[in-house]
Amino acid sequence: MILILKEGTPPTRVEQLCDFLKTLGVTPSPILGEGVTIISLVGDTSAIEPESLELLEGVERVIRVQESFMRANRKFHPEDTLIRVGDTLIGGEQIIIAAGPCSVESQSQINEVAQAVKASGVQLLRGGAFKPRTSPYAFQGLQAEGLLYLERAARQSGLTTVSEITDPSQLELFIEHVDVLQVGARNMQNFELLKELGRINKPILLKRGFSNTLQELLMSAEYILSGGNDQVILCERGIRTFETATRNTLDISAIPMLQRMTHLPVFVDPSHAGGIAWLIEPLALAAVAAGADGLLIEVHNDPIHALSDGQQSLTPPQFAALLHKLRPVAAAVGRTM
Amino acid sequence: MILILKEGTPPTRVEQLCDFLKTLGVTPSPILGEGVTIISLVGDTSAIEPESLELLEGVERVIRVQESFMRANRKFHPEDTLIRVGDTLIGGEQIIIAAGPCSVESQSQINEVAQAVKASGVQLLRGGAFKPRTSPYAFQGLQAEGLLYLERAARQSGLTTVSEITDPSQLELFIEHVDVLQVGARNMQNFELLKELGRINKPILLKRGFSNTLQELLMSAEYILSGGNDQVILCERGIRTFETATRNTLDISAIPMLQRMTHLPVFVDPSHAGGIAWLIEPLALAAVAAGADGLLIEVHNDPIHALSDGQQSLTPPQFAALLHKLRPVAAAVGRTM
Amino acid sequence: MILILKEGTPPTRVEQLCDFLKTLGVTPSPILGEGVTIISLVGDTSAIEPESLELLEGVERVIRVQESFMRANRKFHPEDTLIRVGDTLIGGEQIIIAAGPCSVESQSQINEVAQAVKASGVQLLRGGAFKPRTSPYAFQGLQAEGLLYLERAARQSGLTTVSEITDPSQLELFIEHVDVLQVGARNMQNFELLKELGRINKPILLKRGFSNTLQELLMSAEYILSGGNDQVILCERGIRTFETATRNTLDISAIPMLQRMTHLPVFVDPSHAGGIAWLIEPLALAAVAAGADGLLIEVHNDPIHALSDGQQSLTPPQFAALLHKLRPVAAAVGRTM
Amino acid sequence: MILILKEGTPPTRVEQLCDFLKTLGVTPSPILGEGVTIISLVGDTSAIEPESLELLEGVERVIRVQESFMRANRKFHPEDTLIRVGDTLIGGEQIIIAAGPCSVESQSQINEVAQAVKASGVQLLRGGAFKPRTSPYAFQGLQAEGLLYLERAARQSGLTTVSEITDPSQLELFIEHVDVLQVGARNMQNFELLKELGRINKPILLKRGFSNTLQELLMSAEYILSGGNDQVILCERGIRTFETATRNTLDISAIPMLQRMTHLPVFVDPSHAGGIAWLIEPLALAAVAAGADGLLIEVHNDPIHALSDGQQSLTPPQFAALLHKLRPVAAAVGRTM
Repeated sequence: MILILKEGTPPTRVEQLCDFLKTLGVTPSPILGEGVTIISLVGDTSAIEPESLELLEGVERVIRVQESFMRANRKFHPEDTLIRVGDTLIGGEQIIIAAGPCSVESQSQINEVAQAVKASGVQLLRGGAFKPRTSPYAFQGLQAEGLLYLERAARQSGLTTVSEITDPSQLELFIEHVDVLQVGARNMQNFELLKELGRINKPILLKRGFSNTLQELLMSAEYILSGGNDQVILCERGIRTFETATRNTLDISAIPMLQRMTHLPVFVDPSHAGGIAWLIEPLALAAVAAGADGLLIEVHNDPIHALSDGQQSLTPPQFAALLHKLRPVAAAVGRTM
Repeated sequence: MILILKEGTPPTRVEQLCDFLKTLGVTPSPILGEGVTIISLVGDTSAIEPESLELLEGVERVIRVQESFMRANRKFHPEDTLIRVGDTLIGGEQIIIAAGPCSVESQSQINEVAQAVKASGVQLLRGGAFKPRTSPYAFQGLQAEGLLYLERAARQSGLTTVSEITDPSQLELFIEHVDVLQVGARNMQNFELLKELGRINKPILLKRGFSNTLQELLMSAEYILSGGNDQVILCERGIRTFETATRNTLDISAIPMLQRMTHLPVFVDPSHAGGIAWLIEPLALAAVAAGADGLLIEVHNDPIHALSDGQQSLTPPQFAALLHKLRPVAAAVGRTM
Repeated sequence: MILILKEGTPPTRVEQLCDFLKTLGVTPSPILGEGVTIISLVGDTSAIEPESLELLEGVERVIRVQESFMRANRKFHPEDTLIRVGDTLIGGEQIIIAAGPCSVESQSQINEVAQAVKASGVQLLRGGAFKPRTSPYAFQGLQAEGLLYLERAARQSGLTTVSEITDPSQLELFIEHVDVLQVGARNMQNFELLKELGRINKPILLKRGFSNTLQELLMSAEYILSGGNDQVILCERGIRTFETATRNTLDISAIPMLQRMTHLPVFVDPSHAGGIAWLIEPLALAAVAAGADGLLIEVHNDPIHALSDGQQSLTPPQFAALLHKLRPVAAAVGRTM
Repeated sequence: MILILKEGTPPTRVEQLCDFLKTLGVTPSPILGEGVTIISLVGDTSAIEPESLELLEGVERVIRVQESFMRANRKFHPEDTLIRVGDTLIGGEQIIIAAGPCSVESQSQINEVAQAVKASGVQLLRGGAFKPRTSPYAFQGLQAEGLLYLERAARQSGLTTVSEITDPSQLELFIEHVDVLQVGARNMQNFELLKELGRINKPILLKRGFSNTLQELLMSAEYILSGGNDQVILCERGIRTFETATRNTLDISAIPMLQRMTHLPVFVDPSHAGGIAWLIEPLALAAVAAGADGLLIEVHNDPIHALSDGQQSLTPPQFAALLHKLRPVAAAVGRTM
């Protein structure tokens, strides 16, 4: 961390500042240049808020040179993190697809979708059982029962599962029945939940909050990693902007930016990003071309009767056609699918 | 809810659509106008997603005419909601002030702040014990111990308390020791927490998420209200925009807009909105002039050594000076303070 | 346009409203449904502001059913618009590349870049001569001289040119020396300039303003089209959001959305969108996969000494390597390059 | 400007960097601290782009310590700028009100409004003659004729005028007939127009672009100031955010932030910010309380028949009532009105 001092700060004040900074447990090192005085802080600055140091008299600006996420940082962990789920390796050459309905609605529904997506060559079956809905009057999911349906459908089809956890109280249930635990966009900064997920030994799919920066996403990953769980998959799912033509704006740059900042795998959810079924295809093609390690796609056997998100779900035949189009693009950028 | 059909949709298709809509538990009423065909839905549409109906062949656009928040809606509850906390009445003519440090740091610290803000005429003592921090390496609060310090300081000074709850597992502790339970911006859509808060009989201060619309804020209030707890105070605390000169952008229009949309009291937090101590004064003045029912202000006895948010805290003398400036503006808009 | 009336509006008021609406030159058609009364407006509503009708007593909401851009609308012009520049056809199967420096800096510089990009198979040479810079102290471009250098370099290399016009007073100069006139993001709503460009017979490359919606972009195109010039190419170049990791956020969904809304060709500028040279490759790959009709890429022979935008320019060898990677992706989505 | 070098950059590279930096016309001064090497640049760095220096090998980050607006900067010009228009002093103790219709529609309309706002105690008459409209099919203003109507109405009522200029070609007309030239939000970065306005001797009311930062607003002011015209009034009119309940989001913090950054007067336009007539009152009250030097308010004698912006205009009686409420708040913050 670097403190740039105001022009004309007298040497006695620089000394006072250094004395104060020592009380924060770091070693200040004043540097007097021509026309500028700087104090560089050596030591562990991760608990210091730069803004609070700007309160100090004589300080013009404080700059954090080192990123504050350490375990997620590619600088300190250059090789890609690989995560194994059943027979599937996430983060390697192969692009992984998780597909399934927004909500598990019945055993027969999830069975039907599971068989269809398995036939298309998918690895993970997605399905929500605990649904975080904007309205208390909207369908809230089948809860525990839904997880059991999902598990059964996946086992019968030879798939692994991913489902969203919304509260620490559901943890035991998820550990027993789900392969990959998803943290939804609205819970990306539910730090109590993240702390709990840091203590378990299961892969976590962490979705970016719709208004969170990449830096904040990595700080949330850091909660899980620093707890001891190093199996974190990041997922870009669209951000909130002024544009209203699409439900959210897919931040396609997030893929290469994250891959440069961190060693964790990066997935993309084109269903939530666009919010409209016909947009899934161009967004999925773009995500694969930009280097995504996986995709999360909503597939429903009967979108018009879906209890949630029908408008952004593909039917199984549409989904099969999509995969058919994605494969040559994956090959063109040196990936398999 | 109204479905506008595509031009030229044949009568047989209109009939089919009506048949389908009946299966959703509502009564469709087709209206054939010149150049436009509309189907109006009568009945409870609160569980229907307009977007999903746009999937239906022949449908051009679906519009929700009625807002989907019912209990928070001023239309159905024209008179202002008044909430009593100790001797204090929130939502009436008097503007209520909650003040105190971002974090409770020790018994002596919170005692000192409590006495100072009480002397300035404040009603509520704020102080965080469970801190949701972006970084896992930042100070996370004194937890249960902090709540006890806060309660003791408040009782000694004759104040009531407000503190942030971050997980349903803390509920018992808060019910026993805290007067007003705050839901922070990052938890505005933590629906599991909101559901729990709907089941208790204590006032809830619900902060707007930094990227949530007013509509979404009211839907979150609706979670609490529909659970049976009608003591909800809303709080605008700045939204995330492209502007970087301030930490957040205070949405001053939210005050009159919310007061028109809902009967619930509306507070403003100028400390988080601006993120800089000297901005608190102009933002607090603006909030009072625009009609806020209360303010939430960070006050710290020693901001430079504060463990969090020091840069946006006032010292007790600065706070006393602020109240001195606020009172004539409150009087000018017909309020007391 | 449709007016939804407030519940309980009496028939006499509906009649009054219809009488008033007739004075606006449209034919109102009242529709009384169960629980809802609607007035549908038949006729040319393009000059009516929906918001202003919401002032009328008894009106709950006004909805524009028809988009207000007519000439740009694919509904009324289903086939793709093709634009010819020299031997190049824009908007067809071939993806077109415009490349060159942000600013023309000297005859030798633009010659060197022109020969390099021509060798890579590019069709258009871009180069700025009139530079809209945020700071009055930054390099403002070589002006008329720069256009002549650009033209000369292009003619020698067998390329056509694209350059940004910033004021109607430059029109004659551009008509004589430039093949495609670019309207920059900051001028997307400079309506006086757009009106002038509607009167000429040259292709216009219209960049999306960094905070303008797709709807507004099409309304700006409509200014040019309605003036009589139907050669408009749209260009997505990144929008302003809360994210600061990239200079702008490339709105990749804009490509398929625009192609559905309009018949005009859609280009993408990955240099401005990302603002960093190494991001150009993944963003360009994504744009091609998502269906872009062309790319606008900054190439500079000596980026470190560039007078503007050096940090987001590729060197000629980097650019050649990029095209080598783009071609298989173009082929994978059925396009040539 | 300060360059923070990458850890472990060897001294020979530091020397090379300094040699290169000298070629840019500044004096580099390397500073070797413990764990960090910095190069400070002394001299005029206003034409250097920090981002371009980040391209240099060994450079981690480049920080502009000094703001790049110099003439608008309060640091170098601590006392408030006062601007005289007729008998009115802008930027002093008195809060100045400019009121009138969005568009001048006829001589009688503008006369009627002029007399009404004059009677309420207003100083400036606003009225648009050249209207920048999103749609080419919307009313574009009465042009030159409108300016003459405006001037005549103002002279008869003893008012001065403010009207929007949209192109340099209108300059002569405005110099002859208008007292204060307004630059609209969409033209805030029309640099060719700003350069022309820097050469004249008339006050300029510069509106903030709806997605421009305060820093960019001041850079645009700098175009006018550096041209030689030091009579610039800034105007906050709402920014574009994700919130759709209001037309724009009034950035109330912009008032105190701008007043700290610059010596120029700061106006607020509550009509455009909220976009709804009933919101003008609370937003105007907030703006006065937060320290605005003036307000720009749309007043129309017949809002329902207004050719533009009727929904956000007050009638003369509503406007008189508003001023009646504003005066005690102005007094409460030590201002006159």
